[in-house]
Amino acid sequence: MTITAIVPDRPRHPALDGLVAQLQDLLGPRCTSAASEREHHGHGESYHPTQAPDVVCYALTTEEVSRILALCHAAKVPVVPFGGGTSLEGHVAALQGGVCVDLSRMTGIVRVNAEDLDCTVEAGVRRKQLNEYLRDTGLFFPVDPGADATIGGMAATRASGTNAVRYGTMKDNVLALTVVLADGTVVKTGGRARKSSAGYDLTRLFVGSEGTLGIITEVTLRLFGIPEASAVAVCSFPDVEAAVSCAIETIQCGIPVARVELVDETCIRAINTYNNLSYPETTTLFIEFHGTADGVAQQAAMMSAIAEGHGGSGWREAASAEERTKLWQARHNLHYALLGLRPGSSSWGTDTCVPISQLATCIGEIRRHAKDAPFPVVALGHVGDGNFHMGFHIRMDSPEEIREAERLNTLLVERAIDLGGTCTGEHGLGYGKVKFLRREYGDEAVAVMRQIKQALDPDNLMNPGKVLPD
Amino acid sequence: MTITAIVPDRPRHPALDGLVAQLQDLLGPRCTSAASEREHHGHGESYHPTQAPDVVCYALTTEEVSRILALCHAAKVPVVPFGGGTSLEGHVAALQGGVCVDLSRMTGIVRVNAEDLDCTVEAGVRRKQLNEYLRDTGLFFPVDPGADATIGGMAATRASGTNAVRYGTMKDNVLALTVVLADGTVVKTGGRARKSSAGYDLTRLFVGSEGTLGIITEVTLRLFGIPEASAVAVCSFPDVEAAVSCAIETIQCGIPVARVELVDETCIRAINTYNNLSYPETTTLFIEFHGTADGVAQQAAMMSAIAEGHGGSGWREAASAEERTKLWQARHNLHYALLGLRPGSSSWGTDTCVPISQLATCIGEIRRHAKDAPFPVVALGHVGDGNFHMGFHIRMDSPEEIREAERLNTLLVERAIDLGGTCTGEHGLGYGKVKFLRREYGDEAVAVMRQIKQALDPDNLMNPGKVLPD
Repeated sequence: MTITAIVPDRPRHPALDGLVAQLQDLLGPRCTSAASEREHHGHGESYHPTQAPDVVCYALTTEEVSRILALCHAAKVPVVPFGGGTSLEGHVAALQGGVCVDLSRMTGIVRVNAEDLDCTVEAGVRRKQLNEYLRDTGLFFPVDPGADATIGGMAATRASGTNAVRYGTMKDNVLALTVVLADGTVVKTGGRARKSSAGYDLTRLFVGSEGTLGIITEVTLRLFGIPEASAVAVCSFPDVEAAVSCAIETIQCGIPVARVELVDETCIRAINTYNNLSYPETTTLFIEFHGTADGVAQQAAMMSAIAEGHGGSGWREAASAEERTKLWQARHNLHYALLGLRPGSSSWGTDTCVPISQLATCIGEIRRHAKDAPFPVVALGHVGDGNFHMGFHIRMDSPEEIREAERLNTLLVERAIDLGGTCTGEHGLGYGKVKFLRREYGDEAVAVMRQIKQALDPDNLMNPGKVLPD
Repeated sequence: MTITAIVPDRPRHPALDGLVAQLQDLLGPRCTSAASEREHHGHGESYHPTQAPDVVCYALTTEEVSRILALCHAAKVPVVPFGGGTSLEGHVAALQGGVCVDLSRMTGIVRVNAEDLDCTVEAGVRRKQLNEYLRDTGLFFPVDPGADATIGGMAATRASGTNAVRYGTMKDNVLALTVVLADGTVVKTGGRARKSSAGYDLTRLFVGSEGTLGIITEVTLRLFGIPEASAVAVCSFPDVEAAVSCAIETIQCGIPVARVELVDETCIRAINTYNNLSYPETTTLFIEFHGTADGVAQQAAMMSAIAEGHGGSGWREAASAEERTKLWQARHNLHYALLGLRPGSSSWGTDTCVPISQLATCIGEIRRHAKDAPFPVVALGHVGDGNFHMGFHIRMDSPEEIREAERLNTLLVERAIDLGGTCTGEHGLGYGKVKFLRREYGDEAVAVMRQIKQALDPDNLMNPGKVLPD
């Protein structure tokens, strides 16, 4: 990677040199313009090309973030927050250059209130670190986007993942935030009460705002008791429609599944190869149940009967904790397994979410459109809440393949919106999906979003180019 | 009630006469200045004095609301929305006069998507009407604030109620809204997807905004399957602390109670008198469980063991559906039963919500402060999520009693905030609790709320004087 690759052709901000001197005074070596640092901070885990910031600042406290932002505000230089670098829609790309504020060293667990089932953590705490820390309390934080993302990044992108169907998304599990606004003002959006009807819901306004309204530095989260018992099952289906119908009926019957993951036949082939397993190579559901021992057994029995009614076969429950882990590991490794489908390819991942009754229609249509694509196309998803992903395994050096992936992505997203769904269930907009916002919400709602952005960040310094279309 | 009582000493808005003529052109007799209509629309169900609007408009469609607001906007006349008139903090008081937009005739069920467990209703649909309508589908809408409020009003005030501990509040159960902004623009805040990470969460911004940012005209809601089985239990405790400790341990053990309601000994006395019952006159929990038949039995057994550990006695489960209804009716009638405690008195009801570990402390302290109050004081609450109510049964013609109620209310609210809680768990701010907003959120967060208000309603026409302090 050469420097030219990471510095697009844009003029260097005139105030930058003076600002960097001030930031170095504040942070010492934690303010850096090293090429490797800039490159690392210019991309997430997706196909979006690297767009590097001019300078990277590692903050250690809310106070430091506040001082960094106040300096950037005075200099009118853009700011991009950075957590785990696991985003998928170009959220961290410095489209206008400027200052990257890296929060990954803010890893303090501020407090755990086990009695109240809540905790407060700094934004750079990763979800695995948190759950490791919590283990002895008998509690856990359920939101699991797969990647070991930071809690701050998960809040900023309204992340969710496999068990949102049971435990909700970040929207449901953040109680309060500490946020630094564009001018350096520090705002606390709430306390620790489980519910409140006092004032505008600033917590939910900042959750999912992708750093465009402020930088999240602390997060107060709901926690849950580790379930007394859990069970994991796998079941094969003749096709996607059958598997989805089984998931729909399960939800409609009120069975409180903790996870219900669909993977298509191509995914299963990749899983088998990567993990040396031998699942039947057809559409498959991976399912998890949480509850009491009796409750879990009952849920599994009910769902296996439903699966049978939809042509499911080979229902298998993991007998041991070890087998359970191994089974989920296969699902969690899927990203890497899929890269093996076509060595040298990159995965263009996209996600949408539709009303569950439209799920089979939506997946079916896009699979038909993709049938003749010149690259592997996979479908997988958290089908319990209508959220699914498509992966296009393209060569990034092929303009034709990129164009075809773009065409399929647009088809998928527009169809999902027309079916009452959303352009992204959990990946967020970044700048990759900004163009779909109007189609989803209409001009009037987008205008309201823009008024809010304008009110809180009139100079458009906070992660410019993300969330809102130009 | 005389006209002078409902028209405070304020100048009549100069543009009013012209506006009324325009509104009458639009609505015919559905635009009225009759004294009885104005009086009815100038108050909720609380102690706050009537402050009548100048004119009342009954809207039938979103389009009509849009046209009314556009006219008011052009004339710069304030607008107050009105639903079921059941609010408790003066939400509907026309502090600056102007136009009341009554949505109670917008009672259409727009659609029910039983497969997706969602529905869309007009703002004036009441929750009992909705659940009546849904009965044949096997689904129900769980949020239950006690009063038969409109769904639009419940969304606007972020209502919750007895079973929020299991099903969440309006924040959790509204999928999308149609909102009319100050200038008449119609905005749709989302689709029907269960989750989305696309854009700012306008749905949650308008939920709880109490008509100060726009008027909600349609609401898309999550629905739930009517549980296969439910059970209701009652249990007596030696004191509030014991009952609360039992509730805390139940929640901490992960028992998914559907409701857990605390009533103190004074409430029980009122319940006994009003309903001709004979519960032991001591602190009592009313509990409900939802699930499968086995699951419900298991939950009840687990909780009754916990109750015993906290000195609970007389655990009794309702044997029949009839007994269950009768038991909950006693709880739901409580408001009226309490009025019988002191004939001629009014109930000054207030609510706060604290982290559950602080609940016994908070209730205990305020009960001690209220011990010598010259009027009955009761405590009751949805203790599963730390939300509780105090009722002061005062004579509204006694300035001393009003002052003492105010003193106790302030003590309670400030203590709740200091313990990490909120000034209102579910009643909302209206104008009665506006003064506590800064203490709860701090100046910085209140400034952000004000910036949002300013951006969306620069002329301060939408329900002025509510939510934000002057």
